[in-house]
Amino acid sequence: MGPAAASVQVLLFDIFGTVVDWHGSIVREMAQLHPEVDGDAFARAWRAGYKPAMARVMSGELGWTLIDDLHRIVLDGILPRFGLQDLGEEQRRHLNRVWHRLDAWPDSVDGLVRLKRRFTICSLSNGNIGLLTNMAKRAGLPWDCVLSAEIFRAYKPDPRAYLGAVKVFDLQPSQVMLVAAHHDDLAGARACGLRTAYVERPLEFGAAHPKDVSPRPDNDLHCSDLLDLARRVGA
Amino acid sequence: MGPAAASVQVLLFDIFGTVVDWHGSIVREMAQLHPEVDGDAFARAWRAGYKPAMARVMSGELGWTLIDDLHRIVLDGILPRFGLQDLGEEQRRHLNRVWHRLDAWPDSVDGLVRLKRRFTICSLSNGNIGLLTNMAKRAGLPWDCVLSAEIFRAYKPDPRAYLGAVKVFDLQPSQVMLVAAHHDDLAGARACGLRTAYVERPLEFGAAHPKDVSPRPDNDLHCSDLLDLARRVGA
Repeated sequence: MGPAAASVQVLLFDIFGTVVDWHGSIVREMAQLHPEVDGDAFARAWRAGYKPAMARVMSGELGWTLIDDLHRIVLDGILPRFGLQDLGEEQRRHLNRVWHRLDAWPDSVDGLVRLKRRFTICSLSNGNIGLLTNMAKRAGLPWDCVLSAEIFRAYKPDPRAYLGAVKVFDLQPSQVMLVAAHHDDLAGARACGLRTAYVERPLEFGAAHPKDVSPRPDNDLHCSDLLDLARRVGA
Repeated sequence: MGPAAASVQVLLFDIFGTVVDWHGSIVREMAQLHPEVDGDAFARAWRAGYKPAMARVMSGELGWTLIDDLHRIVLDGILPRFGLQDLGEEQRRHLNRVWHRLDAWPDSVDGLVRLKRRFTICSLSNGNIGLLTNMAKRAGLPWDCVLSAEIFRAYKPDPRAYLGAVKVFDLQPSQVMLVAAHHDDLAGARACGLRTAYVERPLEFGAAHPKDVSPRPDNDLHCSDLLDLARRVGA
């Protein structure tokens, strides 16, 4: 790792898309539960409602609302579009918890295990604490600490989320690095003084919708995956 | 485990005294740093200031204050009594962080590893998140999630701490069990509907001050240590 990032002690990880494969996991689960539905379109429609739902919370239109509940609001909204308007309460509840059952990208667990030897590794996700804990237990993500926007009552990229995480460890922002596959998240962290590492996840939206993962000079590190990140920081 | 506790999914652990040995750890560190001081008396004096300090927060006399800062207020208050009034800022800061460096009781890590196979295991401590995370990393405590009064902005035995932890997992209180070596903590959890397991820690205050650890009928379980707890719940 270059001199700029040599003093980093804590790595914060974005989760959805960065550590776990939400698109592939939802496609696989829909293929089991509702094979008649276009799982790719369904997963993307569900995810597309995520940022607008958080924006309603951050604007004050909605009071503080956990991601489990925002996911459910979005889910209820898209079900008719996919012919699933007759799903009962128990089925909706189970389907909504698919976000607790997302699979890790193939490199994530091994990469985190290596990074954990040298750094304190934490989630920093807009997902709620219970969701992140259930996900970690199922997928084997070895967090030192589960941090969530729920703790700081502010969704990324609000500065309170990044600076709240820095304050938890009584560090300077430059001693903390955000690892994410999303430039808006990294820009939010950088504006607060944190270090940033971009992770390529070209298939985040599925093989049919590859993502531009070309490097941007603003980030301290650019990595192909979490094992590459471990190599670059000597972990 | 009896039928009353068979539906438990999450175990919450009190930390200071229950999972880690604050008295022995502080005595050992004082023997290194300040061998001229009576480490036993020093550790007990520091700890004795803990509850009154939290009471000042919960009464509103002090605004919300993290345990790291309360520990420091108490430390500054007792130093003159032990001839350490001349300690500089850096030394005070280092000494105050001894609470991040507490050693686990000999059974704790093995017990938690076993319990983690069957339950979601979390801290539920008045200690702040950073303290608990640093402690867990050093001592090898394998939490699924670090929960702290800091998240709920209420110190145990305030009901908001117990019920906040229950709400994180979207469970009923009877599906959650508090594990602690302190009857006031267990009584607070029980009043909120949680299950309770008492852990004997007869030497919490040092070998010179053994604690009464006789069973009380109010608790669902009474255990000699965390390995005994694992045996009793079949983990």
